[in-house]
Amino acid sequence: MSKISTKPPSGMRDFLPADLVRRRAVIDVVVKAYEAHGFTPLETPAIENLSTLTGKYGEEGDQLMYRLLHRRDALRRPLEAAHAEGRPAREGELADQGLRYDLTVPLARVVAQYGQLPRFFKRYQIQPVWRADRPGRGRFREFYQCDVDIIGTESLVAEAEVCSAVASALVELGFEAFTVLINHRELLRAMIRAAGIDEALEGTALVAVDKLDKVGKQGVLTELEQRGIEAGSGAKLLDMITPPPGSGAVYNATLLSSLRERVDERGKAAIDELGTLMGLCAYNPAGDHLEFAPSLARGLGYYTGPIFEIRVPDFPSSVGGGGRYDNLVGMFGKQAIPAVGFSLGLERLIVVKDERGDFDELAIGPDLMLCWMDVDGGRVLELATKLRLAGLNVEVYPEKTKKLKKQLAYADAEGVKARFVGICGKQEIEDETLTVKHLASGEQVTLPVDAITPERLAAFVDQAVDQAGGGKPSGSTDEG
Amino acid sequence: MSKISTKPPSGMRDFLPADLVRRRAVIDVVVKAYEAHGFTPLETPAIENLSTLTGKYGEEGDQLMYRLLHRRDALRRPLEAAHAEGRPAREGELADQGLRYDLTVPLARVVAQYGQLPRFFKRYQIQPVWRADRPGRGRFREFYQCDVDIIGTESLVAEAEVCSAVASALVELGFEAFTVLINHRELLRAMIRAAGIDEALEGTALVAVDKLDKVGKQGVLTELEQRGIEAGSGAKLLDMITPPPGSGAVYNATLLSSLRERVDERGKAAIDELGTLMGLCAYNPAGDHLEFAPSLARGLGYYTGPIFEIRVPDFPSSVGGGGRYDNLVGMFGKQAIPAVGFSLGLERLIVVKDERGDFDELAIGPDLMLCWMDVDGGRVLELATKLRLAGLNVEVYPEKTKKLKKQLAYADAEGVKARFVGICGKQEIEDETLTVKHLASGEQVTLPVDAITPERLAAFVDQAVDQAGGGKPSGSTDEG
Repeated sequence: MSKISTKPPSGMRDFLPADLVRRRAVIDVVVKAYEAHGFTPLETPAIENLSTLTGKYGEEGDQLMYRLLHRRDALRRPLEAAHAEGRPAREGELADQGLRYDLTVPLARVVAQYGQLPRFFKRYQIQPVWRADRPGRGRFREFYQCDVDIIGTESLVAEAEVCSAVASALVELGFEAFTVLINHRELLRAMIRAAGIDEALEGTALVAVDKLDKVGKQGVLTELEQRGIEAGSGAKLLDMITPPPGSGAVYNATLLSSLRERVDERGKAAIDELGTLMGLCAYNPAGDHLEFAPSLARGLGYYTGPIFEIRVPDFPSSVGGGGRYDNLVGMFGKQAIPAVGFSLGLERLIVVKDERGDFDELAIGPDLMLCWMDVDGGRVLELATKLRLAGLNVEVYPEKTKKLKKQLAYADAEGVKARFVGICGKQEIEDETLTVKHLASGEQVTLPVDAITPERLAAFVDQAVDQAGGGKPSGSTDEG
Repeated sequence: MSKISTKPPSGMRDFLPADLVRRRAVIDVVVKAYEAHGFTPLETPAIENLSTLTGKYGEEGDQLMYRLLHRRDALRRPLEAAHAEGRPAREGELADQGLRYDLTVPLARVVAQYGQLPRFFKRYQIQPVWRADRPGRGRFREFYQCDVDIIGTESLVAEAEVCSAVASALVELGFEAFTVLINHRELLRAMIRAAGIDEALEGTALVAVDKLDKVGKQGVLTELEQRGIEAGSGAKLLDMITPPPGSGAVYNATLLSSLRERVDERGKAAIDELGTLMGLCAYNPAGDHLEFAPSLARGLGYYTGPIFEIRVPDFPSSVGGGGRYDNLVGMFGKQAIPAVGFSLGLERLIVVKDERGDFDELAIGPDLMLCWMDVDGGRVLELATKLRLAGLNVEVYPEKTKKLKKQLAYADAEGVKARFVGICGKQEIEDETLTVKHLASGEQVTLPVDAITPERLAAFVDQAVDQAGGGKPSGSTDEG
């Protein structure tokens, strides 16, 4: 048979046990922080109707979306119809479902669908999303988002709570120096108006502003001009969105009040909202990390109010973002329902923590590997069953062999790394005992099988370490 | 805007918080059982190359597979080329990736790809798979499988261990009366030969046999004839695969030895393997549940040795299955590596447990909902932060309102169901106290904020229950 590539598709990853132990350690912390904030879990299908997905993420989003090819007759019909009409088939005829692109649009669909949800629906969702983007460091085509959202209220308490949940997760993950950049979509619009830019060009101006980080001031100016915005207006806008650097509560307040004088009533209202939000966060985990960033635009089309983005020192781009999106649920043709959310990008957090060595201590091996010789396999599996019922994770060397050394070497091999080996021979089966060896210290002890529990083994390790520390000779001790 | 359907696509499901709490309860038990058996976790991408997926599941599998439509130029090119050639485009030109159809083929790819895996790779994998099948009770188009596999050994200890892991999960989930049907692909083949059926028809005969449960004896006979198998041979085969009913170790042994006389050497070797396997399982959690089922065929093409299937009394079809597949890893064009695995179907287990009422006691609400009035929101969020740091899951009523009653009613509403409410007013903020009310009993107490911990609240509930049991008048008690 010809050799098939066994790599995962480009931009996709296999998570081997050592990877997954790391991912789960991070996810567990995030779940705990989100649940501490009163969020409950939601999961939605990977596959959504294209009518749900398209038109929500802007043109780029629609292009990066994975679509599912129709099957059988549903595929044959449009292909043959196009042929009969003497034209190539069109993309839109070949698919009506796709993979979810984020977790927010599926949430909006869920909220529109289920009448029985609580009036203030606080959900978290940690699932993969798919985007056919160009892969890069910390950027994949399948990646996990960790979202918290509060649906059903316009109160800024909701903004403060999602910021708190995300900040709390970051603190628990050991990110001390993160920044939560905040801005307001209505303030951005007001600044665009104040710069004398035509309302019709507002959307295109936002796209240009969003690139400030990547292309710099001059780049944005050029792009604004290319998008039909007069140079004077572009310069005026840039002046407003690129204040002198600084940070802290006083800086935030000063900056907000200086901008307040340059924008119209709607802009002032947005600035007041940001001030209120900062007040609400003053004593929550986000408080010290908030930084007003007038150039922050957030690419996604659906935001309507305050917007957020997380930066950490070790990573060049954002590790999370969010904001208020009061019109998205209404786009499903039912009642409009206000909403605000925040999403943490799991992958980037893991990249940073990995590079820091935060995961170096995580173990994947079983508590105990049973090595055996000269006994019936059924009795070994009976012994394994007893030890498992006592609470131990037990692996059994799967093959019958006389070579104990080979079994011991395997128990300590890379990717296996059992904490203990249990050596089971004829005598042990007869006596209902087991000789247990701690691989790291080399200490071993023979115990009655009934006495072997996680606690007993932990105590044995403590004792072995004490002995080593006390300078006593290391060696085997017998009990039982 | 026109009304878009907000239902998930056909055969797909949204899992609301109450659903997810149930699913997670089941998954946690399965993970614990699998880890107790020394299995380590693996996850693979949803998307695989079609070269990985196709040709592994038989014709039906290939038809039920979801394919991902090419994008942009990769789509335009074949559509235009087909048009230029004056023919409809072909399916194979429009996609080269698809969604995984099971977890076994991705595992085989992983094993072929990564040289650093342990020699005996014991992995578990709990992830969704996608099949465009007709939806039905407990049958969905997106559903979770819970797989355990041992790669790298031909030892029957591996079979015994995957059976043990799955049986142990079922026992822990409260399924007492399940059956693990076992058979052997080589025995099936030997019976087909013994019936005088041409080797060339072996595959098609297996497909017919696999339908015994659905279509009955007469149905299989008819189908065998339709597939070109002579009536006498068909009857002979059916006689072997449909023994008189019975169960237990003696029945298994008797049946195996009576079949032993009717098959050739390869068949006898397979029977010996089944006998050995039953011996290995004699004292593990699977032992009492094993039942030899000579008609068991398992649809998937890749099995080569012992095969298994799980039945529970409350569900008409299998809730899990597996077997040995020694050739699958080799299909990736590298070294052939023996393997055996077992897969539990999460969805069906959940359906059965749900119908039994096993989940009725599971709670989703926060520990405490903070209701507040006449105080600054920032101080309420500060209080929430303190309580969260003390270990409580805390929800804050998100809107400012003078109506305490409304807040209390919401805390107890369907889908919210906080265990406690904390009532926070001016006085409480000043005194750094909180009045906490247990919603189920109506008991309340005022405590210093620093004293409010999960343990303190649990003790308070115990006390309230004791008081109620002791006939003492229920009412508020004040502390602190």
